[in-house]
Amino acid sequence: MDYQTLRYETADRILTLTLNRPDQLNSFTVEMANELEHAFRRASEDDDVGAIVVTGAGRAFCAGMDLSKPGNVFGLDESQRPTVADMHTRLDDPAIHDGVRDTGGRVTLAIYDCKKPVIGAINGAAVGIGATMTLAMDIRLASEKARIGFVFGKIGVVPEACSSWFLPRIVGIQQALEWVYSGDILDAQEALRGKLVKAVVPPEQLLPEAYALARKFIANRSPVAIAFARQMMYRNAAQPHPIEAHRIDSLAMFYTSLGDGKEGVQSFLEKRDPQYTGKASDMPPVYPWWK
Amino acid sequence: MDYQTLRYETADRILTLTLNRPDQLNSFTVEMANELEHAFRRASEDDDVGAIVVTGAGRAFCAGMDLSKPGNVFGLDESQRPTVADMHTRLDDPAIHDGVRDTGGRVTLAIYDCKKPVIGAINGAAVGIGATMTLAMDIRLASEKARIGFVFGKIGVVPEACSSWFLPRIVGIQQALEWVYSGDILDAQEALRGKLVKAVVPPEQLLPEAYALARKFIANRSPVAIAFARQMMYRNAAQPHPIEAHRIDSLAMFYTSLGDGKEGVQSFLEKRDPQYTGKASDMPPVYPWWK
Amino acid sequence: MDYQTLRYETADRILTLTLNRPDQLNSFTVEMANELEHAFRRASEDDDVGAIVVTGAGRAFCAGMDLSKPGNVFGLDESQRPTVADMHTRLDDPAIHDGVRDTGGRVTLAIYDCKKPVIGAINGAAVGIGATMTLAMDIRLASEKARIGFVFGKIGVVPEACSSWFLPRIVGIQQALEWVYSGDILDAQEALRGKLVKAVVPPEQLLPEAYALARKFIANRSPVAIAFARQMMYRNAAQPHPIEAHRIDSLAMFYTSLGDGKEGVQSFLEKRDPQYTGKASDMPPVYPWWK
Repeated sequence: MDYQTLRYETADRILTLTLNRPDQLNSFTVEMANELEHAFRRASEDDDVGAIVVTGAGRAFCAGMDLSKPGNVFGLDESQRPTVADMHTRLDDPAIHDGVRDTGGRVTLAIYDCKKPVIGAINGAAVGIGATMTLAMDIRLASEKARIGFVFGKIGVVPEACSSWFLPRIVGIQQALEWVYSGDILDAQEALRGKLVKAVVPPEQLLPEAYALARKFIANRSPVAIAFARQMMYRNAAQPHPIEAHRIDSLAMFYTSLGDGKEGVQSFLEKRDPQYTGKASDMPPVYPWWK
Repeated sequence: MDYQTLRYETADRILTLTLNRPDQLNSFTVEMANELEHAFRRASEDDDVGAIVVTGAGRAFCAGMDLSKPGNVFGLDESQRPTVADMHTRLDDPAIHDGVRDTGGRVTLAIYDCKKPVIGAINGAAVGIGATMTLAMDIRLASEKARIGFVFGKIGVVPEACSSWFLPRIVGIQQALEWVYSGDILDAQEALRGKLVKAVVPPEQLLPEAYALARKFIANRSPVAIAFARQMMYRNAAQPHPIEAHRIDSLAMFYTSLGDGKEGVQSFLEKRDPQYTGKASDMPPVYPWWK
Repeated sequence: MDYQTLRYETADRILTLTLNRPDQLNSFTVEMANELEHAFRRASEDDDVGAIVVTGAGRAFCAGMDLSKPGNVFGLDESQRPTVADMHTRLDDPAIHDGVRDTGGRVTLAIYDCKKPVIGAINGAAVGIGATMTLAMDIRLASEKARIGFVFGKIGVVPEACSSWFLPRIVGIQQALEWVYSGDILDAQEALRGKLVKAVVPPEQLLPEAYALARKFIANRSPVAIAFARQMMYRNAAQPHPIEAHRIDSLAMFYTSLGDGKEGVQSFLEKRDPQYTGKASDMPPVYPWWK
């Protein structure tokens, strides 16, 4: 699989996904949306990938939608007048999929579905979809040079990429609203104070820090247990009652305990490293439990 | 429209809504509830209003329910014995509306439905409903003289005005529970440390800061895009899955892009201020999408 | 009622629940799960209990699941192959209850249902279920000697005890994911910085601080109003729309105002302590409203 707008490079079970249009500050196009969606769905099933680091080539992370290409701005077709019902019944109808659906949301939904931890390494400007795509990533690290802006209001449009679902979960509703209303470009320290990013590091430390986290997340870890845990954290927390978490906890604990958990406990008792055999591409039959 | 308990004053597209019973420390009455509900629903459709600042006349913001008026304490009628079913089927039945429904909740639901950013400028005591009504506002600023207390437990009643829905979204469940259980009167710095308020400022800076934020939120902004964004942030985040956000993002992006977004992008490319024509009183047909 | 793994001691309307297997660092067994579930359901209806403090005997809070007992590790029976449907229809079927359901979740669901404020006093190691069981408690205090770890990933299993529902509500989704992925053992200061615990105190101050909080939460408080408030805070906030909070607020305000609220307001106006007669064991008929 060749990508035109991305680099997909795996080493030591860490996938580095690099937005790779440096001359255009990695600005976002329909092609990039399609490739990112593909890459995250591929990485989710790729057993050579334990964790994912996302960054940008050159000095930007992603400078937002590429506004220079007419007809490409929001992926829509003016002849369609979509309704709420269309968005419930025709999501995969090409007229809706290609003409109406928010391209950024297709990407963040693919990240949401992913079975691997995702770390955003924000190396520079992350604006518009460049900012909102990082919200579906689990952990955000910022270079001191990062600049982050939810700037949609400044051009008469709305925050997208499911950012209204993710951002309040990360920073709380008050901070989320302030940033969306203001469209301010946040420097790295403001993003840190608002808890949008986990840490701010010098530019040359950004990828090393991201890889150190990724290594910690996958060292001696069962890919099956990681996939369960990621989906449980996002999905259970959004349910109206903890009993829904309990149903899934019980099943996930049952099946992991019959599988890699048996080796995990044994290796712990024997004070040795575990040798797991489970694969994210071959989950127990209760996964995906939401289907 | 004349209000007895409020001042409704618009200048430069900013509405200042002033709780105006200074001799009673702006304590809350059924009349004030009705007027606040009316004022927020009016401001939501008033195209001369871009953003709303709420403050109190005199030294208090709102000292809580006016307990001095018998029969007015909680707006209820002892002859009613309402059931959960009543609250689902008879919300607008006068017996329930006037006799049972929490008056504070009628106000915060009107704020929730509002199409305009709402900034609480807490100038002094904000206690009981004086505290909980601010939770439905998007951003809270506090004067150094602000004192905030969720004091319901101290008089044998419960937190209201949908505060159990709003407060954990703003400060997290642990802090929310502590304040509700303790009934402590928080000074401005405690409120800031707990992330209840965005900032603490000297008393004379309170309204200037609130207006500065309001101006930033509406300068060169599309009222249609703001209305969409506000409702998306509150409603999408409370859904169980980000796909619900994606449906609305897609529609909101589609319709704003056909409308003010076209001018927004054009003006951005031409490096000039936009000239928007959209009005919050005339939203695209998908709004309100939840009906 | 004699417990083998717990101490249940009530004084001044504060129940101290002590995990009491100090020679095993209070490690968690099926017996302890059953006793904790029983103790929380009992305390919920025990009118001599106004608030609950949970701590550990000896130097640990709870060192996690007791892995030394074969067949006891996760309470499951390998001959069962449970499905999602089973977890919806057969939760109380003994084969599922005893063989599949997560024992930690049975405890945290009992804490969730409790009518009394619950304070976790984390005196030492709180690892695995020792960490996750505290998430269902309302407030966590940590001794300087506390060590907290969500270590499930290290042994090939998943976070449980409904922790995926509770943890993001307390610390936000980014911090929650980092701790679950890393399995790091947090010292008390890290837990405080991440807002997992309310405060860190010297070991000898831990119980005095917990009792001071508990006393503040119950002094001159109506047990009926406290029970309503606790359940409202957890349940209403998880609903998709604040109108659901409004329905319950209205009913809870109505019934408390006819009961202890009448005395509460009267005593406030007369500047004297209230004399409440309401009991948590005898709630108004709208409680539990979710049944």
